[in-house]
Amino acid sequence: MAKFQLNILGCGSAKPTPRHNPSSQVINFRDNLFMIDCGEGTQSMMLRMGLNLNRLNHIFISHLHGDHCFGLPGLVSTMALQGKGGTLTIHINKDGAKLFGDMFNYFCRECPFEIKFNIIEYGDNIIYEDNSIVVRTIPLKHRVPTVGFLFEEKPKMRHINREMTDYFKVPVYKMDAIRNGEDFVLENGEIIANSRLTKDADPCIKYAYCSDTMLTDKYIPTIKDVDWLYHEATYDNANEKNARSRYHSTTTQAAEAAIRANAKNLIIGHFSSRYHNEELLLQEARAVFPNTILANEGLKIDFI
Amino acid sequence: MAKFQLNILGCGSAKPTPRHNPSSQVINFRDNLFMIDCGEGTQSMMLRMGLNLNRLNHIFISHLHGDHCFGLPGLVSTMALQGKGGTLTIHINKDGAKLFGDMFNYFCRECPFEIKFNIIEYGDNIIYEDNSIVVRTIPLKHRVPTVGFLFEEKPKMRHINREMTDYFKVPVYKMDAIRNGEDFVLENGEIIANSRLTKDADPCIKYAYCSDTMLTDKYIPTIKDVDWLYHEATYDNANEKNARSRYHSTTTQAAEAAIRANAKNLIIGHFSSRYHNEELLLQEARAVFPNTILANEGLKIDFI
Repeated sequence: MAKFQLNILGCGSAKPTPRHNPSSQVINFRDNLFMIDCGEGTQSMMLRMGLNLNRLNHIFISHLHGDHCFGLPGLVSTMALQGKGGTLTIHINKDGAKLFGDMFNYFCRECPFEIKFNIIEYGDNIIYEDNSIVVRTIPLKHRVPTVGFLFEEKPKMRHINREMTDYFKVPVYKMDAIRNGEDFVLENGEIIANSRLTKDADPCIKYAYCSDTMLTDKYIPTIKDVDWLYHEATYDNANEKNARSRYHSTTTQAAEAAIRANAKNLIIGHFSSRYHNEELLLQEARAVFPNTILANEGLKIDFI
Repeated sequence: MAKFQLNILGCGSAKPTPRHNPSSQVINFRDNLFMIDCGEGTQSMMLRMGLNLNRLNHIFISHLHGDHCFGLPGLVSTMALQGKGGTLTIHINKDGAKLFGDMFNYFCRECPFEIKFNIIEYGDNIIYEDNSIVVRTIPLKHRVPTVGFLFEEKPKMRHINREMTDYFKVPVYKMDAIRNGEDFVLENGEIIANSRLTKDADPCIKYAYCSDTMLTDKYIPTIKDVDWLYHEATYDNANEKNARSRYHSTTTQAAEAAIRANAKNLIIGHFSSRYHNEELLLQEARAVFPNTILANEGLKIDFI
């Protein structure tokens, strides 16, 4: 079975606590690792979670607050020490490319792999695409320009209905076309509809990362119908004023985003350092959107 | 009793391991904190070791390898969040001031304290001085320009011999002069030698931090007669070639530095990631210099 797995490396907010690391996650998509945000200490969490740095080729940075990017220089230096080859692409805004580019030029002079910056703009844009997956930016609303990231599987091939293809003697060389939805034409000219020869493809899973942001309608269309939504819930409802003034979300606002987006599952994270546990946050979010779970360092979720 | 205490926050080398953090230490001198080096994760170790960020006003960076400085942006950002006031002085070379200056300008725009860079040059120079302590650079030899740091207490006042000052009726207003070594003149003109009125002052403790370096005679004069020497011992003796090619030291070379400097005590650190424990390193160093201990995260040593 193809793998599409989320790994939570850090789900705290700016102020460090002994309980949480700053923001970072890794998507393991068919054993290729995609990192979202890279707070300080991320490389240690990679080690602790058994994630192989050599399989990491793309890092996506949501915005330039330290708790989302200060782990980059250490992570990249360690990848260089470990002799990673090929290319590492860092998807980041223009200012970030300049600042971290200067750091890498100085500290990673003997880097055995190429470091490429893909400059991302604010908005809903495709920033990465391969045969199986597309990554888009999500236009969030925070104190500084911030985007989330939508990971969406590309449409998959339909499943062959073996009994029927045997019956109609579909030749092997036609199978890929049939999997892609083509009808089959018999020698006598009769057309066999694809729907008789195949069963539905597996659904295309969508995962959205929305942190940091206050709730607005602007980003809802991009995350419509996601299977899994990671949404920040920095504060409980009693701290709504704090959330507003800092351009963050409360638990109820995170849950509201899940409802508006018609998400199937919600993961809340980016917890303020003021909470000694997150039970209250979970209760408040579940009261609005029952399919909610808490992020936690070390959590792995298999989307498929 | 005045405090002069060493706190080890990290004593690993460049490659991260689950056992060690990259280099950082804090000197607690009479409740003022002086940090030496600041690898990634240093701010977390400050928190774990109960060291108050508001009492940290000076950071000394030995050289620009990531495992000695990548914790700076996160540490300074957190100090800003916590509302530290006054001035933070970062003693660092010119390149470091430029690189980290750019980072602070971007990420710490609303910093409530002033960040000052004190540009340090290679050599044996006084870089900090107050009424009680002097800090000098130590000219080490590494792949990039590197200095160690010598922390030396200034001469202290002599202890009054109360019996004698009572006997000679030394007035209170003369006491500070007597403590500073002056003789006392009686009304009849007779001179009472200071040595009869006072006892020796407490000794002035010296601590030297030498990491990273290969062993050379160049830095020995600066660290002569130190009470405590922290010296890197990245490798065991069997890896002497590795040590030489990377401009690091072996255990025996660290011990040899302690002997040449006539140090009283040696702490070895900056352990290569290859060791699953440091027993071999300790044995090798002790075979040459018995007063050796291993650094370890969380270790506190009271020099007085």
